[in-house]
Amino acid sequence: MRGVVMHAPGDVRTEEREDPVIVEPTDAVIRVAATCICGSDLWPYRGQDPVNQPTPMGHEYVGAVEQVGDDVNVTKIGDFVVGSFFASDNTCEICQAGYQTHCVNRQPGAATGGQAEFIRIPLADGTLVTTPGRPDPELIPSPLAASDVLGTGWFAAVAAGAGPGKTVAVVGDGAVGLLGVLAAKQLGAERIIAMSRHETRQKLALDFGATDIVTERGDEGVEKIKELTHGLGAHSVIEAVGTQESMMQAIRSTRAGGHVGYVGVSHDVALPGEEMFFSGVHLHGGPAPVRRFLPELIHLIWDRKIDPGKVFDLTLPLDQAAEGYQAMDERRATKVLLTF
Amino acid sequence: MRGVVMHAPGDVRTEEREDPVIVEPTDAVIRVAATCICGSDLWPYRGQDPVNQPTPMGHEYVGAVEQVGDDVNVTKIGDFVVGSFFASDNTCEICQAGYQTHCVNRQPGAATGGQAEFIRIPLADGTLVTTPGRPDPELIPSPLAASDVLGTGWFAAVAAGAGPGKTVAVVGDGAVGLLGVLAAKQLGAERIIAMSRHETRQKLALDFGATDIVTERGDEGVEKIKELTHGLGAHSVIEAVGTQESMMQAIRSTRAGGHVGYVGVSHDVALPGEEMFFSGVHLHGGPAPVRRFLPELIHLIWDRKIDPGKVFDLTLPLDQAAEGYQAMDERRATKVLLTF
Repeated sequence: MRGVVMHAPGDVRTEEREDPVIVEPTDAVIRVAATCICGSDLWPYRGQDPVNQPTPMGHEYVGAVEQVGDDVNVTKIGDFVVGSFFASDNTCEICQAGYQTHCVNRQPGAATGGQAEFIRIPLADGTLVTTPGRPDPELIPSPLAASDVLGTGWFAAVAAGAGPGKTVAVVGDGAVGLLGVLAAKQLGAERIIAMSRHETRQKLALDFGATDIVTERGDEGVEKIKELTHGLGAHSVIEAVGTQESMMQAIRSTRAGGHVGYVGVSHDVALPGEEMFFSGVHLHGGPAPVRRFLPELIHLIWDRKIDPGKVFDLTLPLDQAAEGYQAMDERRATKVLLTF
Repeated sequence: MRGVVMHAPGDVRTEEREDPVIVEPTDAVIRVAATCICGSDLWPYRGQDPVNQPTPMGHEYVGAVEQVGDDVNVTKIGDFVVGSFFASDNTCEICQAGYQTHCVNRQPGAATGGQAEFIRIPLADGTLVTTPGRPDPELIPSPLAASDVLGTGWFAAVAAGAGPGKTVAVVGDGAVGLLGVLAAKQLGAERIIAMSRHETRQKLALDFGATDIVTERGDEGVEKIKELTHGLGAHSVIEAVGTQESMMQAIRSTRAGGHVGYVGVSHDVALPGEEMFFSGVHLHGGPAPVRRFLPELIHLIWDRKIDPGKVFDLTLPLDQAAEGYQAMDERRATKVLLTF
């Protein structure tokens, strides 16, 4: 099969690889219908995470089940499925509490790399969610978005307590932040302030339900949020970047008693305890338990209530994955979909 | 009147001071029935916070209203009242959301120092809660505890999500931690693990409802909590110390998706972003909005359902306040009550 492999920072190749096979009896093998490139794939691409050996890439996928192991009972061959970046049994106490990304048996979700024609998925019954049928081709980008960026933005909005009567601010205008806007809108937020200085992303944010755009960042961004909220700060702030500046911007934009939902993977962040203490905010986040939300998200997508697939602004064949990485690295594309 | 003044670290004196008077029309003056020494009073006593000038001490009090300003409408002369360490209007949006310690008009609660015969209380109508009557002398320690340490322990337990079916661990065996145990018990927690290596405090923790005692600290303490919770960690952890070690002990003792309620004032704490991110816990805390809980706490006390006054293990006349500070500093006393 064809699959994407990173050989070194900046060196991504689509090459011939061995077809994955069932290893554990709880595995399934999926024939991928569409996959994509994640913001987190850029960390090794930019040399911010090490690339110690040629590494199969990708963890977002939708596709049809091709093979199942002997202990797979729920997932059937032919099912069209969505999974996410962690495999989970969905039965342990942590999964049952809705934290499948912390499952006691968790494993990488796309064991053999998601940017490929086929993938081996561990713990298939717990990990995969079957859709109501094979989607029309034009619908495919939306369940693919649910696999990570929508699920992550949704978790951030839930963690931030977005809901009726709430003012939600969103720090970060990448795919996750933009879908955090969509999630806040669906969850009934009254006012949604997208923080962005990129015109096309501002447009998509407004399209997804943002009511206000703030272009300022850092302390100026915080001041602007306060101006818009009678000096109090937002009730709910989504942090979808993961830097020290964005995290402090999020905390300082939140009113006392409000909630910060953070999903930007924190690299080199240290939160000052005293400021956090006196802020009086709630903090919750981490790797999003996308599995918790998948059934609901698929339902909303199939009913055409949400269109998260709009977040993909570049579609390329798998063989041109390298160009996709470059486009995202240079911010020419927000999110790149790879087809076959 | 007589009042306690700190002149320098280690130098606390009970001396003659001017009687407080109404300054703002929203003020009340209270004749104090009992006051006490707070763990936070030890910060300047130990030189960890500066003492730049002779400073009237104390912010915990119960007493009878002696005078009210022209704009005080709810609080009446003669009412027996409980207040706390911040004065709040109790009408702004932040107060109405239950975060009175972050009131847009907040001020220090005992403007003229609580360890004194009389105190001026700003924003009296918003700040003071009137009890069902003058308590019997033997009851007085309990509403006094509600003024800060019980209210703070209660907030920590609420922030930690303590409730039916939950395992709650408590980091810190000072008055706040011990009353966090009492709060968790009242909130219906199934199992309450007190972390303490002091025999008398262990005993009080058991008395307040702890089901288990863990004497280990740091990483060993975390391991012990995991052993007691099928390797998962507690659902709810109360952090009532405020050091880097105690904060990390609290976060690491909490299962993914669980809650840390932190009320130890964080001095020199920096939370590592990446560990926090991957822990998947909820964090909430800060200066406790005691005012939110006072009506309920007074009710429980008057009905003799809780006896938080047991946390006082040394009672001294106000004139011997210096001895009280010394006893708490040397950990000979958990909490010192001062009488007249």
